[in-house]
Amino acid sequence: MARKVGPDEQGWCVDVSGEPIVNKGLRNVCVDESKICFIDGSSGRLFYRGYRIEDLAKYSCFEETAYLLIYGKLPTREELNNFSDHLKEERELPDSAIRILKLIQKDTNPIEVLRTVVSFLGTIDPDKHDRSREGRHRKAIRLIAKIPTIIAYTYRIRNELELISPDPTLNHAENFLYMFHGEKPSSSSAKELDLALILYAEHENNASAFAAVVIASTLSDYYSAIVGGIGALRGFLHGYAIVEAMNQFDEIGTPDNVEKWFNEGILTGRRRLIGFGHRVYKTYDPRAKIFRECARKCAKENGGNIRKYYEIAKKLEDIALASKLTEKGIYTNVDYWSGIVFYSLGIPPAFYCTLFAMARVVGWTAHILEYIENNKIIRPRYYYKGEIEKKYIPIDERG
Amino acid sequence: MARKVGPDEQGWCVDVSGEPIVNKGLRNVCVDESKICFIDGSSGRLFYRGYRIEDLAKYSCFEETAYLLIYGKLPTREELNNFSDHLKEERELPDSAIRILKLIQKDTNPIEVLRTVVSFLGTIDPDKHDRSREGRHRKAIRLIAKIPTIIAYTYRIRNELELISPDPTLNHAENFLYMFHGEKPSSSSAKELDLALILYAEHENNASAFAAVVIASTLSDYYSAIVGGIGALRGFLHGYAIVEAMNQFDEIGTPDNVEKWFNEGILTGRRRLIGFGHRVYKTYDPRAKIFRECARKCAKENGGNIRKYYEIAKKLEDIALASKLTEKGIYTNVDYWSGIVFYSLGIPPAFYCTLFAMARVVGWTAHILEYIENNKIIRPRYYYKGEIEKKYIPIDERG
Repeated sequence: MARKVGPDEQGWCVDVSGEPIVNKGLRNVCVDESKICFIDGSSGRLFYRGYRIEDLAKYSCFEETAYLLIYGKLPTREELNNFSDHLKEERELPDSAIRILKLIQKDTNPIEVLRTVVSFLGTIDPDKHDRSREGRHRKAIRLIAKIPTIIAYTYRIRNELELISPDPTLNHAENFLYMFHGEKPSSSSAKELDLALILYAEHENNASAFAAVVIASTLSDYYSAIVGGIGALRGFLHGYAIVEAMNQFDEIGTPDNVEKWFNEGILTGRRRLIGFGHRVYKTYDPRAKIFRECARKCAKENGGNIRKYYEIAKKLEDIALASKLTEKGIYTNVDYWSGIVFYSLGIPPAFYCTLFAMARVVGWTAHILEYIENNKIIRPRYYYKGEIEKKYIPIDERG
Repeated sequence: MARKVGPDEQGWCVDVSGEPIVNKGLRNVCVDESKICFIDGSSGRLFYRGYRIEDLAKYSCFEETAYLLIYGKLPTREELNNFSDHLKEERELPDSAIRILKLIQKDTNPIEVLRTVVSFLGTIDPDKHDRSREGRHRKAIRLIAKIPTIIAYTYRIRNELELISPDPTLNHAENFLYMFHGEKPSSSSAKELDLALILYAEHENNASAFAAVVIASTLSDYYSAIVGGIGALRGFLHGYAIVEAMNQFDEIGTPDNVEKWFNEGILTGRRRLIGFGHRVYKTYDPRAKIFRECARKCAKENGGNIRKYYEIAKKLEDIALASKLTEKGIYTNVDYWSGIVFYSLGIPPAFYCTLFAMARVVGWTAHILEYIENNKIIRPRYYYKGEIEKKYIPIDERG
């Protein structure tokens, strides 16, 4: 028996005509008020806690930006030193976590390794039963500190290289590159990574932050929420887009081939253009501008493949912007350019999504802490379009 | 500089007066159309794929209900046999997963063990690169089959008991109890668990199903989505409520103490009443009715503590319903009664959330498959209430 289910008696949100409003993707739906991040999508401005991303990129460092996002204000010198020291103290991975890393197959996507090891770390966190604000802060610092170690060790284990203990004389970005490559990074490399971490630290209610908050809203534990964020970031429409953009550049191959590739693939509709467009920005993403400039510098300084990637990317951007695609206001996004910067740091593309996570764990943490301060479980509906009151027919009488 | 951010230029959903609508909790918001589950919250009816939960509870079994939810129709005898055989073939855990289980501290919450091991299984799934519908079905069957083994082995490892290999002559519920206890269950125990699994298999857009779909909507992998579902279920406002309800009964202690406890704790507002109320139901949850009757039978047959729990629960329900609380339409929910049934199966309360996951993985799977069939990334907004254009002050000049 088929029956139309009325919206009124079910309490579904309805429009003025009484029809339920189905908003697939939840475009423009505000799930809460927030004081963390403002994306001005129409004019292309981005603020963390009220500060322009351009100012933070120019003057701040990852540790300070993380403090700002989590605690809501820029730290004094003493507060920043304490926070940085606390991060340094928590960088080491326990032996049990290293054993798990070694048990995982070497061909595993590094973001899935990270998801698994972070889930494991939740089971041994000394504050795992502490649900106070202070306990959550300690867990957050512990995890922000350990994620770079997990990523570096994943790389070194699969390449059969010796594990490098964290170095407390180095900052967050420097230490990661040191543990990853086994040698101290140049000052310019460390600054490029530090910049990338600032740019990726937070971006309002993106799918991974939202997944983390949905999980936290059941009053689950901090690690469950972060593991959910990592899982969402792994998607091709989110953090994995960086890898996809690099694959696109590889497929194009050379700057000379961009126009042919674009005409034959994109204009004919046979391929989807990767690295363009964003749900919120209607103009150029300010982070993409900064990453583009950083990629240009890396290309100029390093030459070789980095220059080739940059030239392909720049030419593809020019051609796409000159084509009819720009009429829809579609610009290159942050994930289009960041891979070129990561490539210049000597990191293989399979790891780019984990670098995103290494930064974004800060934004997830800030949103989890803000949301549960005045929690309400996130429990939306589906608009049911199927039949009801179907008759159960015994199995041997089914057609 | 403080500034009110206008809703129009940002595209936030606004009400008729132009103010952004902030719907914390997303109450009544429809995130998609769906043909999986209909909760008629006003009259207390629940349908899986159009079939009444009462009919499925009476005539179906877990395997058939899982098939119904995932494939959208009741199976023929042959389809059910194939599906059940496929589940039986996939029950074994690989050695590497057992090694991970043994590495995890014995005091870890079993749902966090499950979260970690499921995340690990994603890294070795033979279909991990297969994003086809068939590949997803194979992964789903593999995971539905293996979750009971993970739970049983978690229990046996922490109690230093020998691990029991799955027995292909037993059905899903029977085999779980066999692997858990090390002996074949009575027919009534197996039927009680089977019933519980049917009742917990699916419940529309609850927070865990929604978390799984948010993650899947980025085109992430199946395991990331399920791990997110498990993380959400772990919350005290979701799957962990079963354990909380049992703790409440323990705290009350005896049926004679219910009235005193209620008057001193609940009526004075000093405590929150656990196990009452539901976001969608405005009347009695039909699953709670079935669980209540099952708990009554268990109490009658077994006596002892089970009878004590049931009598406390029944008396608390009577007193609460007779009090002013019922005026708000607050009834006992499914998690209020299910723990008593699980207790009668000889399973310790710490595991009740994992039993919920063992059933609900089916609903998560059905929703993931349905949503990504016509995918749109779930990316809502926050209504920004902070300042913008704050001036970055160098660290040594900060007050």
